[in-house]
Formats: sequence, C-alpha cells, structure tokens
Amino acid sequence: MYTLDSDNFAGALPQILEAIVASNVGHQLSYGGDDYTERLQRVLKSHFGELAEGYPVFNGTGANVIAMQSMTPLWGAVICTSLAHINTDEGAAPEHVAGLKLLPLDARDGKLTPELIDQEAHGFNNEHRAQPSVVSITQSTEVGTLYSVDEIRAICTHAHHLGMKVHVDGARLSNASASLGVPFREFTTDVGVDVISFGGTKAGLLFGEVIVVLNPDACQGINYVRKFNMQLASKMRFISAQFVALLEGNLWHEAATRSNSMATLLRERLDALPELVVTQPTQANAVFVILPDGVAEELRQYAVFQTWNPLTSEVRLMCSHDTTSDDIIGFTDCLENVLSKR
Amino acid sequence: MYTLDSDNFAGALPQILEAIVASNVGHQLSYGGDDYTERLQRVLKSHFGELAEGYPVFNGTGANVIAMQSMTPLWGAVICTSLAHINTDEGAAPEHVAGLKLLPLDARDGKLTPELIDQEAHGFNNEHRAQPSVVSITQSTEVGTLYSVDEIRAICTHAHHLGMKVHVDGARLSNASASLGVPFREFTTDVGVDVISFGGTKAGLLFGEVIVVLNPDACQGINYVRKFNMQLASKMRFISAQFVALLEGNLWHEAATRSNSMATLLRERLDALPELVVTQPTQANAVFVILPDGVAEELRQYAVFQTWNPLTSEVRLMCSHDTTSDDIIGFTDCLENVLSKR
Amino acid sequence: MYTLDSDNFAGALPQILEAIVASNVGHQLSYGGDDYTERLQRVLKSHFGELAEGYPVFNGTGANVIAMQSMTPLWGAVICTSLAHINTDEGAAPEHVAGLKLLPLDARDGKLTPELIDQEAHGFNNEHRAQPSVVSITQSTEVGTLYSVDEIRAICTHAHHLGMKVHVDGARLSNASASLGVPFREFTTDVGVDVISFGGTKAGLLFGEVIVVLNPDACQGINYVRKFNMQLASKMRFISAQFVALLEGNLWHEAATRSNSMATLLRERLDALPELVVTQPTQANAVFVILPDGVAEELRQYAVFQTWNPLTSEVRLMCSHDTTSDDIIGFTDCLENVLSKR
Amino acid sequence: MYTLDSDNFAGALPQILEAIVASNVGHQLSYGGDDYTERLQRVLKSHFGELAEGYPVFNGTGANVIAMQSMTPLWGAVICTSLAHINTDEGAAPEHVAGLKLLPLDARDGKLTPELIDQEAHGFNNEHRAQPSVVSITQSTEVGTLYSVDEIRAICTHAHHLGMKVHVDGARLSNASASLGVPFREFTTDVGVDVISFGGTKAGLLFGEVIVVLNPDACQGINYVRKFNMQLASKMRFISAQFVALLEGNLWHEAATRSNSMATLLRERLDALPELVVTQPTQANAVFVILPDGVAEELRQYAVFQTWNPLTSEVRLMCSHDTTSDDIIGFTDCLENVLSKR
Repeated sequence: MYTLDSDNFAGALPQILEAIVASNVGHQLSYGGDDYTERLQRVLKSHFGELAEGYPVFNGTGANVIAMQSMTPLWGAVICTSLAHINTDEGAAPEHVAGLKLLPLDARDGKLTPELIDQEAHGFNNEHRAQPSVVSITQSTEVGTLYSVDEIRAICTHAHHLGMKVHVDGARLSNASASLGVPFREFTTDVGVDVISFGGTKAGLLFGEVIVVLNPDACQGINYVRKFNMQLASKMRFISAQFVALLEGNLWHEAATRSNSMATLLRERLDALPELVVTQPTQANAVFVILPDGVAEELRQYAVFQTWNPLTSEVRLMCSHDTTSDDIIGFTDCLENVLSKR
Repeated sequence: MYTLDSDNFAGALPQILEAIVASNVGHQLSYGGDDYTERLQRVLKSHFGELAEGYPVFNGTGANVIAMQSMTPLWGAVICTSLAHINTDEGAAPEHVAGLKLLPLDARDGKLTPELIDQEAHGFNNEHRAQPSVVSITQSTEVGTLYSVDEIRAICTHAHHLGMKVHVDGARLSNASASLGVPFREFTTDVGVDVISFGGTKAGLLFGEVIVVLNPDACQGINYVRKFNMQLASKMRFISAQFVALLEGNLWHEAATRSNSMATLLRERLDALPELVVTQPTQANAVFVILPDGVAEELRQYAVFQTWNPLTSEVRLMCSHDTTSDDIIGFTDCLENVLSKR
Repeated sequence: MYTLDSDNFAGALPQILEAIVASNVGHQLSYGGDDYTERLQRVLKSHFGELAEGYPVFNGTGANVIAMQSMTPLWGAVICTSLAHINTDEGAAPEHVAGLKLLPLDARDGKLTPELIDQEAHGFNNEHRAQPSVVSITQSTEVGTLYSVDEIRAICTHAHHLGMKVHVDGARLSNASASLGVPFREFTTDVGVDVISFGGTKAGLLFGEVIVVLNPDACQGINYVRKFNMQLASKMRFISAQFVALLEGNLWHEAATRSNSMATLLRERLDALPELVVTQPTQANAVFVILPDGVAEELRQYAVFQTWNPLTSEVRLMCSHDTTSDDIIGFTDCLENVLSKR
Repeated sequence: MYTLDSDNFAGALPQILEAIVASNVGHQLSYGGDDYTERLQRVLKSHFGELAEGYPVFNGTGANVIAMQSMTPLWGAVICTSLAHINTDEGAAPEHVAGLKLLPLDARDGKLTPELIDQEAHGFNNEHRAQPSVVSITQSTEVGTLYSVDEIRAICTHAHHLGMKVHVDGARLSNASASLGVPFREFTTDVGVDVISFGGTKAGLLFGEVIVVLNPDACQGINYVRKFNMQLASKMRFISAQFVALLEGNLWHEAATRSNSMATLLRERLDALPELVVTQPTQANAVFVILPDGVAEELRQYAVFQTWNPLTSEVRLMCSHDTTSDDIIGFTDCLENVLSKR
C-alpha cells in the first residue's frame, strides 16, 4: 500500500530516536528544569532571534490553543481562514477549551490577505462583538500553499496597525522554510510575527511541538495557560531533546526538503495525466487533485489518501520525510493504470 | 546529588526505549488506528477484564480531566480528598477546562471513606448545588498510602448506591498492585471501579498515560472529549507501544517493586534516626518525614527533595524505578551526618 | 428625535406594568415555585401544546445559550446563518460560556434552507470535527424576513433526518405569528421545532424571555444549565407574571401587529422615494434600506437608527410596540426633506 | 403560613414599583445608555466615592461571577469561606462559567481572617497551583453575622500585601450598613475593598444587582465580561431606576432596618425558649437556631423556613423588608405551642 494520507503516518527520523536514547541518562529536573530544555532555548534563539522563548508542548492543537489563549483577552476573537486547522480539525478546542470565537474567512488558496482580514476586523470597542485580537495564519497552509515573505509582512503590518497580533500555525514551518529557501526568522520574527506554533510531529519527531514566542509582550501567563491546558510535560527533556536534534543542525532542512521534493515529483507526474485537475499550487509537501469519478475508489486498493472534497472528488496527497521516489512512481503508475482501464 | 524529589526525575526504562525503536518501522494509521494501539487493547483486557477499553493520552492531568469530564454531566461535581493531585497540582484544569466543581475533603492519610464521602454527597436534585457525580480516589495516594481491596470496594458500593461513579487516579497504580500483591483487576474492576487514569510516566515511560474504561456505561463521548481536550496523539503508536512493553510482560511489576522496595529501605533507615518523625505509613514508593529545624536546608547541599509542609518541615522523599540501594544508603548517611553535627 | 434604532428603546406595555403591580402581593416561593410561574405553564401549553414547558430567564442571550447548551452534547456544534444574533451580537457567549462551536452560513435574507444546512452538516462521527447537533433559525429573522410554515417544516424534517435538533431564536416570535397570521404552534410545535427562545423584552416586557421546550427529549438538565448560567431568577414571579399578561389574552398580538403595521407603513413611504434601495422584504417590524451617500449623517440630526452595513450605507429602521404613524410620517418627511436638499 | 424561608420570598417595595412606572416613559437608549443608568452612577459615587462605577446586572450569581472573573487572571483562584454563596449556592457557576478555582476555608461564623486566608494564600508563581488572586467575603455573611470595619480593613490590608484583591458579596450590604450604623463607604471604599456585588433583590427590588467597582485598577474588561456572561440588560433603565429609588434617599436604610429589627425581635423571643440553641450572633436579618428533634416537622404546618443542617436540626429563619412584628410574634407563639405539647 502506498500511504499518502498524512505526514502523521510516518514514524520518527532515526536521529530523533538516537537523541532520545542519548538523553535518557540519569535524573533531570521535571517540568522544564532540565538541561535539554535550556539548550533548546539557545537553539531557538539562534533561529528566531534573541527574544525568542520556547514552550514545549505535546501536540499541535495544544500549541495553537495555548498560543492563542495567552495572546487574547477573555473577550477576544481570532481571524483565520475557514480552511484553518484550528477551524476544521481541532474538535472545537479553541472554542470549547479556550472560549475563543473564531472569525473564519473563505480563501480558496488557504491564505489570508489584509483585504480579507478587514471583512472581520471591525466592531472594536463594541461590547456586543467578540473583539478581533489575533490573526492566525498557517505556513505552509492546509492546502499546500505558501505565503511569501512579503505577504506575511503585509499581514503583520496590517494586523498590528489594527491593534491585533499575529500567530502562525507552523505545523509545517520547516517545509515552508525549505521551500522558500529562506531562514525561519526572515519570514517570521523579521516581518512581525508574534507567536509561532512550531511543528515537530510532522517534521519527524515522535511527538512534540514548541510554542515560540517571538514578541514577549504578545503573551500573558503562558506558563500557567500551558499547565491548565494539560500540556506541561513532566519529563520535558524528551520533547526538548528531540527539538534540539531536529534544529541544532540541518536535520529539519533535510527532512523537509525530502518531503517537499517528493511532492514536486508527484505533481510533475500528475501533470502528465490529462484526466486530472490539480487544484492548488504545489509549494510544500502536499498535492491536491480532482480525480475522475470512481477513480478514487479503485485506487484505494493500492493506496491510502484523504478525500478532501467529496462533492468534487478532490483528494489530498501528502508526502512525508520518509516518502521515496519509488513510492511516488509506484503510486502514479497505479493511478495511470486505473485511469487507462476506464 | 541524591534526587528523591519526584518519580518524574527519572528517565525511561531501557525496555521502553527498545519498544519505541522497534515500533518506528514503516507507516501506521494515525490517531489510534495503528497496530500497537490495537494490541494495547488486548493487553488491557488481559489485566482489567474483557470490557476494558483504553484511551491513550499524553499526561496524567489530561487523563484525569478527560476521564472525569466524560463521566459527569455538565452540572456534575467530583468528590476527592483535599490532597488529591486533581485538587492541588493541576493548575485548576478540572475547573478551568472541564468546568468541574471539586468537593474536597480533608483526609490526613489521603484516603476517602464512605463516611467522609457523605459529608459532600448531598443536595441531589437541588439545582443550586453542583451535583455530586463522581468519587475520585488516588491509588497509591499522594502521601504514599494504599487503599486495601476492601476499602475500595466499600467506596464503590457506597458511591454506586448514591448514583455516583468511581474514578481512580492511578498515576502509581503499578506501585499499588506490586505493594498489595494483588493483580490490577482485583482492586479495580472486580470491586466496582468505573474508570482509571493508568499512569505510565512515573512507571518508567518517556511519557504517556492511558484512560482505562472498565464500565462502558460510565463515560460519554470520551473520544470527542479526548480530542477537544487536546490529548489525542497523532502518532499514537508511540504511546501504545510503550504501554504494551510495560504491561504485556512483567516490566511494570519489576519497576514498581524496585521503587517500592527502595522506599521500604529508606523508611527502615529513617526509623533508626530518633530525631525524625515519619508521618505516614510507607506503603508504596514515598516516605514523608518531619526533619528537625534547619536540617532540610543543610541536607539540600547533597540532595534534592520536596518540601511537603513548610510549617512543620515535613518533606517528601520519592523513589523511582532507577533508585538504587546505594542512593538510599548514601542519602541517609548524609542525613545522619547532618543530624550528628547539630 | 425619531427613534427607530431598536425595539429595545421602547419601555414596557402599560398592561405589563399593571401585571407586575398586581403580582406584588405577599410572599411567593422563590426560584420558580410561585403561582405565576405555574400559571405561565398552562398559558404556554395553550399556545404550544400539552408537552410544552417554559423556563423563564432574564434575557435573550441567556435564553439562546441555555437552550442550545442543554440541546447539545459537549462536542456539539450549532448551524446558523452568519447574520444570526447568536453569531454576531452575543459577545461570543455561545463559544465562551457554553463551549459551542457555531457553524455559520451566509444567507442574504437571513434564512437557512436544507441545502444550506448540508454545507455544514457533515463529518458525523469524526472526532476531529465538532458534531453538528442543532440547527438554530431566527423567526422573524435579524433582517426582518419570515420563514413560511413550509420552510420551517422542511428545515425540521431535514435536521431530524440528520439526527439534529431545531432551535428557534424567537426574540420576535410574536411579530412572526402576527405577520404570518398563524398561531404559534402551527409554525413551531406542529412542524417539528424542538425548543424556542421566546422573546418578551422586545415584545413589550420590562425584561424577560422564556425558553419553551416543545420536545421534552430535546434538552438535558435545563434546570441546572439555567442555574449555572446565572439566569435563574430568585423572584421569578416578576418574569412569569409579565408573560402571563402578555400571552394569556391578546396583548402580544396587538403589540406585534402595531409594530408590524408601522414597518409596513414605513416601507410604503420609503418605496415612494426613488433615491432609496430597500434591501429586504418587509415581513415583520424592520425595514432595511440603502441611503444615498451622506444622507444618513444628515438624517441623524432628527432620528436615531442603526447602521447595518457601513460599506453600502445600508441602515436598519426598527419599529416598536409604541411606534406611531405620526412617528413614521414625521421621520419619512424628514428623510424626504434631506433628500430634496441634495 | 409564616414565611421565614428567604428574603427572596418578599415582593418589591412599593416605592420601587412607583419608580419603575415613572421610568416607563418614552424611548431610552438601550444597554446602559439611558438617563437612569447615568443617574445611578452619581448616586453610587455619593455613597462609595468619586472613583466608584456601577455595572447593573440581573442577579447576584451574575454579579459575583462577573466581578470575580474581571478581577482575576485566567489562572486565578478565589479564597472564600466554605459557607460562601459562591461556593454552595451558585450551581458551580464560578467554576463552570468563569473557570475559577475556589479555595474554600472552614469558618464557623462565616468570616475570613488574615490567619485563615494564609492557609490558602501560598504557591505564588508556582504554575501547578491556580494562583490565589482574590479574597471574597460576604457582608453580612450567609450566617447572619457581620464583619466589623476593622476586620474588613485587616483583610484588605493583608490581601493587598499579598498581591490579592478583595471582593465583597454584598447581597445584604444594606443590612450590614444599617446594623453597623456606618455608611457604606466606611466599611468598603475607605478600608480597601476593591469591588462589591451590591444586592438589590433581597433589599426590595423586583430584581437587579449592581457591581460597584471601587478600585478602577481592579477589573479588566468588565463591560465585555458582563456581556458574554449574559448579564447585559437591554432595557437597563429598569434596573437602574430601581437602584436610584433605593439608594438616592433613605429607602434602603428603612427597609434594611426593618428586616434587621425583626430578626432582633425574633432572637429575643427565641432566647426566652430554653429548649432552643441559637447558633450564631444575630447581627443582620437572619437567626440560626437548633430545634429539638421533631419540632421542625411539626412547625412546618404553620411556617416555611429552611433547614440549614439536617444532622443537627439547625434551621435558618430569615426576615424580609415586609416582615412584621405580628409575623414574629405569631411564629414564635406557634413554636412555643409546639414545644409545650412535647
């Protein structure tokens, strides 16, 4: 079976496992007092600037909710796209756990713009309306597209001008950096992003994300918010050691480049099949494509992938750090075969 | 430095790391569709009975909150001791995230009784009072004591008679089983416990707990509750594989026996020092002792441990799966030395 | 000044004050044990059928949140229009207080349809998605339009078929009944509506709404939900007595007919002014109209009204139970005058 | 039947009804923009000082929750007595709606002291513990006792010294002022109280409380918190006009003096019956007394009153603004009669 369903289907990078084994020596202070978490702070500063501070957590939903809740007042609301993971895939955790109202905006390519933001950035000081306080964007987006450096800068400038802060859901931030060919800080810290949910799980960890606060004034009480939201790891060294291994050297870049390039290869091969309609630019590690009627069902004998839009037979094909070109070639051969039999 | 502060200071058991490495092969369905999670279900049934179902989560606070929230109606309240971890150490997660009112009862030995429960088990059908719905006990308790099988049975019988359910915070359930010399199910399933937060982290995992539902009627929508409470692991195989390694054979018992026996040794050596007052029975892996004035400060040059009650100079000494008799002897020699110089 | 801003600007109907004075005799049981609340139950059954039960509360936001929260599981979501009061004007109370995710749908006329509902009624049994559990419609709508009896029936049938329940925000349900010329139950109970937030404040009370549960299986623990949501009135007789006065005879119908007919008159007079664009059918007590640039500002010297869409200069003109034809004629004369001077 | 159950059983003072009728003229801005709410601000400043600002709400639970939530950070906790209304009678609204952890302390007379507060005022800056942020006291207390001016000053000084704020649940603040013979500000503003829930309902209104912020730095975003907590009245004039009538002249004092003096009379007559044990000082409008076995049941043929402690047969006898000396004499005659027949 070819598995292009999710970058969560892959295991961990071997170097990550080695790092965990290496960190499993002796006693360490719990809840973040350990050596690895301290070292992670230095690594994060080297990537994101001296003001950056990291708060390791368990998973992406946790990272997003804690980041947003510590960035907003009780009466705050968050502007995002209607495709945003926070809006579609977190089981209403932002609303249920953090009491946040999301203000979702339709964006075919998964990207906000200042003009779109303005559709919801109103009603300031009106007590009847939850106050727009944070703009949350995803980089790379849920549909495999990328914001350019300038696009993020424009959003940050606009949001700050309106008194709002900017959060980046960076579950695939490594893919974005590798694809843009730009260091992390150039499209985050340097253009005004306030807080990032930096993704580890999809980048090749066992588990683990780290909230990176770039603007120390953007968050209040994040330590407490992490704790009561049940995301404070007791043996935190095992999250931090993974991130140190990922980010201290080039591992993150290699892994992201691999999954990105597999998506590029996949895209090339799909483009050669005229029956298909690719629906989004392929800018990171995902390809979205409309299959002719009945093809998806047939293809599922050989491969696992996600239906994105059942009405249009659009499917999502996601590459992981361990996807190989053999996988891509084998999968597209299957697809070609299915198509040819129709 | 001797570290007797917390069983969270230890790393993972070597066999656990081996299990993680072994499970890191190929793709697996995410969010619990993997082979390891399926195998874990069988392992849990072998320990807790055929009706048992496990829901792996990240940490103990998450396990407790999800278990309790899925066991209670919106207007429910939970009876516990005032020493309970859910009352003292979870940053108000039960209240803040799950909206639960705790009804804490003072219990010197950390143990509820039917009589104590009756102090808060009233006001049924009175809309002005949050409705007592769950009794939550901790086994072994936060002060190192144990409920006997009969004591748990009496609590379950009483709670059920009143229309309430019973939750066990089992962060150290392995220690309890090893110390009681009784299989898990004899002091849980068989005496009427409804749901357990089964602890992995303190038992020697990297991280991970599993909510074990013994009574399928006791919980509603726990899958959804786990998700919106941000405790649904995408690469769940890495939690499940650890628990399989811990519980399929005897590993859990060996590890718990080790930490228990170290506490027993520690207790014996403290009993030999007449200046000290041991404040609790030593029935699991913790010893609580009042040190003479000034001794704790002096001793902290050589050891890390937790102040339990600053007013009485009571400290908590906690043994881990990797505590050695050399650690205990070295520590108590230091203590004796400090005492002798006074 | 002509005040067409809101039906909340009016005071109470004189008969309502008389009813309050009449009820202020002697002691009555608090929290709903009083004679007036009992009598209200009978009045509600006469309007809505024998199964109807009423739960008086303080205000409309309270009624909506309590109704929806008692109708949904913890993991539930509510489908509504993006114009819905619950989505735009309740300060995120549904999200913040009840943890509910709203799934808003754009509808120019403020009305859902089965086809629109289908855009969000999916993902059942998928733990990653808050589960669509309730469809909430507003009758008459926030933009002064009406659902027909058949339209509501179609929505209820569709929702029930999908396993969802139907809530009606009836802040202006009296206006709807009077305008449709149809008794309450014919467009609620008889077509499948489960729960109503029945509006009193805008209908001419001092304050007060009543949640009317038509389908007893639709709500869980509403007594408790009302209490912890801080909407249980201690001297409940003073809400119930108002509703008895409103609903026992014809008072509700007279008042609603008055505000409806004033909106009809207003509409007729606006239609005579060719510079204006009326944007919605006038089916209850509100008229929505686009004024030429600059007219609104000028007109505000003489009248108070609400800007509905600042981008298009659309304004909302709302009639109350105490609006007179002199008010309407005077206002439209002013408007004509302002227009003629341009 | 003699009704001594609750001061919520009484209706409204006639002058309050007159004020409502008088305020029911013409249109007024909704949501607090009306003339009466403005006038209320001046009245409150005359009682509580120039910095005082009032936020009218519907009921006492609403006032308490909004006050406390706007006074605390997300991770805050509130120290109170275990007898506090917020702990026993609000259906877990503080926990469920505001996510607040209460830290209740046993106090036989319903009164906190600096020493008691210290039992829970610890763990500052420890993320594992909800941070003690507010001390909430009730004046007069739930058991009919009073704090002296000095006792409140000592609590405020101590709380402020620890970085906490002080909230007063003043459901019966008028009774306290009348009984102490001291103006409101002398035992609130002048001794350091930060925020008050000022009670109207039990003082003789139809309904309505007002949160009085004495220290403008003590609350954040209270307007928004009131709104999303569903306590923002649209026709706010009808709450404000009642409070103006109560507080502008002497009405509050007359009404409170009446209920207080009836409690004093009741106490005197109970003291003359040697079979009874009065359990609390009678300092406001309530008397707590232990009846001999079986007496309560017999007495309920003639009177309605509340069982306070079923284990000891302690009952609560509460006087209202409309309790008469005939009521007291009649009730105690009945009681004497019941006692004599035993």
